[in-house]
Amino acid sequence: MNDTHKMNDLKTVGEFGLIDMISRQVQADSSVCVGIGDDCAATTMPSGHVLLTTKDLLIEDVHFRRCWTSLYQLGRKSAAVNLSDIAAMGGSAHHLFLGVALPEDMALADIEQFTQGFLDEIAAAGATLCGGDTCRSTGSLIVSVTVQGSIAADQVVQRSGAQVGDHIYVSGTLGDSALALAQLQRGIIPDDYLAQRHHTPTPRLQLGQQLAERKLAKAMIDVSDGLCADLGHILEKSHCGALIDRRKIPLSVVTQQHLRQHPEDEELVLRGGEDYELLFCVSPQHGNAVADLAQQLELSLTDIGTIQDFAGGLQQLDSNGQRCTIHTQGFNHFG
Amino acid sequence: MNDTHKMNDLKTVGEFGLIDMISRQVQADSSVCVGIGDDCAATTMPSGHVLLTTKDLLIEDVHFRRCWTSLYQLGRKSAAVNLSDIAAMGGSAHHLFLGVALPEDMALADIEQFTQGFLDEIAAAGATLCGGDTCRSTGSLIVSVTVQGSIAADQVVQRSGAQVGDHIYVSGTLGDSALALAQLQRGIIPDDYLAQRHHTPTPRLQLGQQLAERKLAKAMIDVSDGLCADLGHILEKSHCGALIDRRKIPLSVVTQQHLRQHPEDEELVLRGGEDYELLFCVSPQHGNAVADLAQQLELSLTDIGTIQDFAGGLQQLDSNGQRCTIHTQGFNHFG
Repeated sequence: MNDTHKMNDLKTVGEFGLIDMISRQVQADSSVCVGIGDDCAATTMPSGHVLLTTKDLLIEDVHFRRCWTSLYQLGRKSAAVNLSDIAAMGGSAHHLFLGVALPEDMALADIEQFTQGFLDEIAAAGATLCGGDTCRSTGSLIVSVTVQGSIAADQVVQRSGAQVGDHIYVSGTLGDSALALAQLQRGIIPDDYLAQRHHTPTPRLQLGQQLAERKLAKAMIDVSDGLCADLGHILEKSHCGALIDRRKIPLSVVTQQHLRQHPEDEELVLRGGEDYELLFCVSPQHGNAVADLAQQLELSLTDIGTIQDFAGGLQQLDSNGQRCTIHTQGFNHFG
Repeated sequence: MNDTHKMNDLKTVGEFGLIDMISRQVQADSSVCVGIGDDCAATTMPSGHVLLTTKDLLIEDVHFRRCWTSLYQLGRKSAAVNLSDIAAMGGSAHHLFLGVALPEDMALADIEQFTQGFLDEIAAAGATLCGGDTCRSTGSLIVSVTVQGSIAADQVVQRSGAQVGDHIYVSGTLGDSALALAQLQRGIIPDDYLAQRHHTPTPRLQLGQQLAERKLAKAMIDVSDGLCADLGHILEKSHCGALIDRRKIPLSVVTQQHLRQHPEDEELVLRGGEDYELLFCVSPQHGNAVADLAQQLELSLTDIGTIQDFAGGLQQLDSNGQRCTIHTQGFNHFG
């Protein structure tokens, strides 16, 4: 707690007071030569590594609703969804940049909560906030995050490396986040487990790094747009098809129970986004190595199907074991 | 011109069609190992260099109005204001990341114009678009740009290096952009020169690089918030004061003429932002070296004052040669 709490609105502290407030929440990092408070940040990165960069916008009433999330959760999620992209390349996260456009009536305490959530999430990943931009918004809250990470140049895992015969794995469980969102949209408050899965997803950084280091993953993506859409991206880049077994897709107990009562929500498993689990393709001879890694990380890694010829497109064995073609389309911002 | 022109709205091409369209406008770059179309970009950077990163948001009706600018100009400016931050550290720009939140009714042709402006501006800087994010906006057009550049580790120019006795220089002319904006706000159409200064500012990359390489600039910043505010940032970080001579501040012929007729606009010179000229501090013995550089770059570099003791704050000799203290406050987003 500091002086700025006495001044509880943005107009009183001003843009530079706000930047000072955020700076004081940030911890030191020896790889940051110049941090917050200059025209650019200046940073170093591990030698022999390539730089990984990703950026995502989160816009109020497009990506989130302030009435459904705490600002602390939103801060964590804003970082997590970006860190997840670093995980999907097999990399480690180092430096983050945060841009926020703030409605003028936003309380400083809310901004501090948002920042604290953001910083807690990146601290868990061993990363540091190094800069960004603050400005006012005429309407909604806008968050723009850039993450820089790195990986040994020969370990980068792209979407394009899948080959016919590879097994397709997914970490954790799918559909939880989409179910929580569907409930919120229906006016139902999700239980704690589903809410946590939706509001504070876990970027699978350790898993991604291990899959890259051990050269187990030949192609990888994080499940942000939904299983079909994201597997579709791998298939498109790898020029392959796939056969997935609907009955093998890992579901949480909560989601299983829900689907027994509401079979009409089955599609959430295939098409629901924002689980931020890793979806990756592995040569068949490495099945045991994946099982070992799952045990070591205490995280389920489930074989849900195989990579096939391009011509077949994406097919599934449905809940009755019937083979059928499914389209890959998932969330599309302009659809 | 390509197929997508037949489909002239965002809904028809969709998010991934839009990303494809942008990708096709981008040129190849050997430092980009993985470009647009994966979870992250993977890039290399020159050895012995530190990584410079900056990011800025540009929000409709906060930073720009679509009725005052073409989308092509807006694309150029979105890149230029970010490149200017790399210039202010003395660096070279390499890789850019572009996030856009688009109103759903925005025409594809407008988006293509915006992208072309952005790409033309970064091509002039020798830099490449490597990734980003596209999503819909519920209201205004939102642009988020991240630039990565680099500089030899021992050449980084921060805001904190100014010392008593240093001369304060500024490139080009000041006040033009602010005058254009003031005219637009008053319903007057600025002449071509002023409009160009406001809508398509020139990031002073070559100047910044030369000042860093020749170790001439001890402290540097780009003039984005106004001379007083940005000099104020140098003084704060360097724990110094300054005396500037109002009569020496370089003005364009157009701005000089305007001020003769409208002396009430004098403040625009001290407080008007967005000129994106470089403001830098140089040891007194290096005056000739700066003059040589100005000649070589064919860009005016004007000595407007000196760094003083901290106690005096920021003072000016006004147009009558009278010494007075001025406050450093410039543009403040929440002021």
